[in-house]
Amino acid sequence: MLHFQITANDGAARTGELRVKAGVVHTPAFMPVGTLGTVKAMTPEELREVGAEIVLANTYHLHLRPGEQVVENLGGLHSFMHWEGPILTDSGGYQVFSLSALNTVEEQGVHFRSHLDGSALFLSPESAVGIQEALGSDIMMCLDHVLALPAQEADLEDAVARTGRWAKRCLEARRGAQALFGIVQGGTSQTLRHRSAEEICALGFDGHALGGLSVGEAPQQMYDTVAFTVPLLPPQRPRYLMGSGEPGDLLAAIACGVDMFDCVLPTRNARNGSLYTRHGKISIKQARYREDPAPLEESCPCPTCRNYSRAYLRHLYVSSEILSMRLNTYHNLYFFLDLMRQARGAIAAGRFAAFAADFLAAFNSGKVVA
Amino acid sequence: MLHFQITANDGAARTGELRVKAGVVHTPAFMPVGTLGTVKAMTPEELREVGAEIVLANTYHLHLRPGEQVVENLGGLHSFMHWEGPILTDSGGYQVFSLSALNTVEEQGVHFRSHLDGSALFLSPESAVGIQEALGSDIMMCLDHVLALPAQEADLEDAVARTGRWAKRCLEARRGAQALFGIVQGGTSQTLRHRSAEEICALGFDGHALGGLSVGEAPQQMYDTVAFTVPLLPPQRPRYLMGSGEPGDLLAAIACGVDMFDCVLPTRNARNGSLYTRHGKISIKQARYREDPAPLEESCPCPTCRNYSRAYLRHLYVSSEILSMRLNTYHNLYFFLDLMRQARGAIAAGRFAAFAADFLAAFNSGKVVA
Repeated sequence: MLHFQITANDGAARTGELRVKAGVVHTPAFMPVGTLGTVKAMTPEELREVGAEIVLANTYHLHLRPGEQVVENLGGLHSFMHWEGPILTDSGGYQVFSLSALNTVEEQGVHFRSHLDGSALFLSPESAVGIQEALGSDIMMCLDHVLALPAQEADLEDAVARTGRWAKRCLEARRGAQALFGIVQGGTSQTLRHRSAEEICALGFDGHALGGLSVGEAPQQMYDTVAFTVPLLPPQRPRYLMGSGEPGDLLAAIACGVDMFDCVLPTRNARNGSLYTRHGKISIKQARYREDPAPLEESCPCPTCRNYSRAYLRHLYVSSEILSMRLNTYHNLYFFLDLMRQARGAIAAGRFAAFAADFLAAFNSGKVVA
Repeated sequence: MLHFQITANDGAARTGELRVKAGVVHTPAFMPVGTLGTVKAMTPEELREVGAEIVLANTYHLHLRPGEQVVENLGGLHSFMHWEGPILTDSGGYQVFSLSALNTVEEQGVHFRSHLDGSALFLSPESAVGIQEALGSDIMMCLDHVLALPAQEADLEDAVARTGRWAKRCLEARRGAQALFGIVQGGTSQTLRHRSAEEICALGFDGHALGGLSVGEAPQQMYDTVAFTVPLLPPQRPRYLMGSGEPGDLLAAIACGVDMFDCVLPTRNARNGSLYTRHGKISIKQARYREDPAPLEESCPCPTCRNYSRAYLRHLYVSSEILSMRLNTYHNLYFFLDLMRQARGAIAAGRFAAFAADFLAAFNSGKVVA
């Protein structure tokens, strides 16, 4: 169902291969987010081109539209969205946080009102697994209880305990051969992260995730929590930091031994005209690019940079053209997936720390301003 | 500057090759509309794939955004938009009709208020040519006076006369080697079309267009006007029917001897979920397609039809996903450009009338409903 082999270690960082039925994922890996069964503005062929080996899709959103039964009747999510590679589905736990105004958590599960039409829906550990099995993803996630930070210690304790009980129920609910990852909660509390990691890792999941981060805490608190928690997870299983995605976040977590990431930043920022370069982010709408004949990034081999000027990218953006979202998304995803490729190479060569330091020095140099 | 060679005649229909500096266009040709220097949702590579050999861009819109000076400074429109093939630019005359609430026509030219911010701009025959020369298109269009139909005979007479005077001024204003087409006006009046055709064709343009159609008249009136006017245009020059684009319009006009077309229908309809098939148009949002595993069109070799189900296309459309606009646009353009390929082949084989009759019988069969 899931095989994970580490091929090189460099300090706590590691690179490896994660195999599921749909294919091989080289780690550290970044998963583009395909909320509704499409990574916004991209075709699956383009995802392959930029180097994506696995994509993430959202259980909550696909349950609402088009519904997992539709997807299952059409042969599962791979066939439905024409992406033959590995797919990880989240559980809806993140929407407990992001749509907190629209849900209430109780021991049995989470009552949502649909963000589309207000209709009632109920997500339990069992139904979250059932939906993911119907979708047919390669890696499923347990339903967890995610709180916004800062949170009261008592609330965090309660969420950690519930996440543990739900994790057991998810495991018991699984019927097929899809991999299932457990999620460690606990906010920024070392005590609670320790307790949650012990509890979750004892259950025998195929991999382990750090959840409940990038939900309001300061970056340094997130880094500290990752650095503290990762060593508590068994090294022979893949480790997944959920929802964090600035390049500095990825490199810091890789240094700690994290293997998998997902984030909407490259795709969402692209649609907002915020574009990643080696020397920082560019806001392409700025007037300074009005007649700029240079590519977005001189050294970038992606088609956006090979074929178009900053002036044209600005024109498309200020004109709200669809091609703007396409070209920007392509470039940003290329940037993130190339960063992962470089990180894997640096780990294999035993020079990850130097690579990360050099990358961040350039990225934070202020040579370009967002 | 422009060479046009007819390679086969079939009744009044003809097929040929139109050569400009940027390349060869096989006629009859359909020009996808790239208003702001991008055919919405498509890359230039995809335009090539679907069989486009020439695209249209809009002088009025590019004058406002990003401005022809920006385009010229960046090496011209081909380089700016990364489309190396032929480009035809309209003159802004169509916007005299489509933005009639925002402009006033006088002998010197047209005063517009920008549809974006209300700022004043003035388009004369001379400035329309000057803008098109700065853009660097292969084929420029004269500024003409387009009226909505039905119109008063006296107003049509006035517009025909002005279009003639402006045509002379456009020719005199031309400084470079770009081709320039004259436009015949006159509403649905045979007298006025005759007068306009004589006047325009005497001036020595590189090609001739039928303007002022698809602006409110009934389809049969449009067909009758095309059938009456086309024989008045010299056969050795290309003939262009502006802005008409339903498949029936194209085939009827080709039968009369028209060589070139442009229309937003395939691209705009695509974005609205209206998709062309051999058996008529499909509205992909309909509930009947919710779990339909079939491709949009079984026999269509385009990637949209090869890789995706109607159910997925419906899901993307109702979810307002960008990929919906991409896949739909690709298919509709493929459909239109394939229709042109088939028409050219049928003319060369001397069986155009039978081809058109068969095509329209299937297309209007009512087997699918819009």
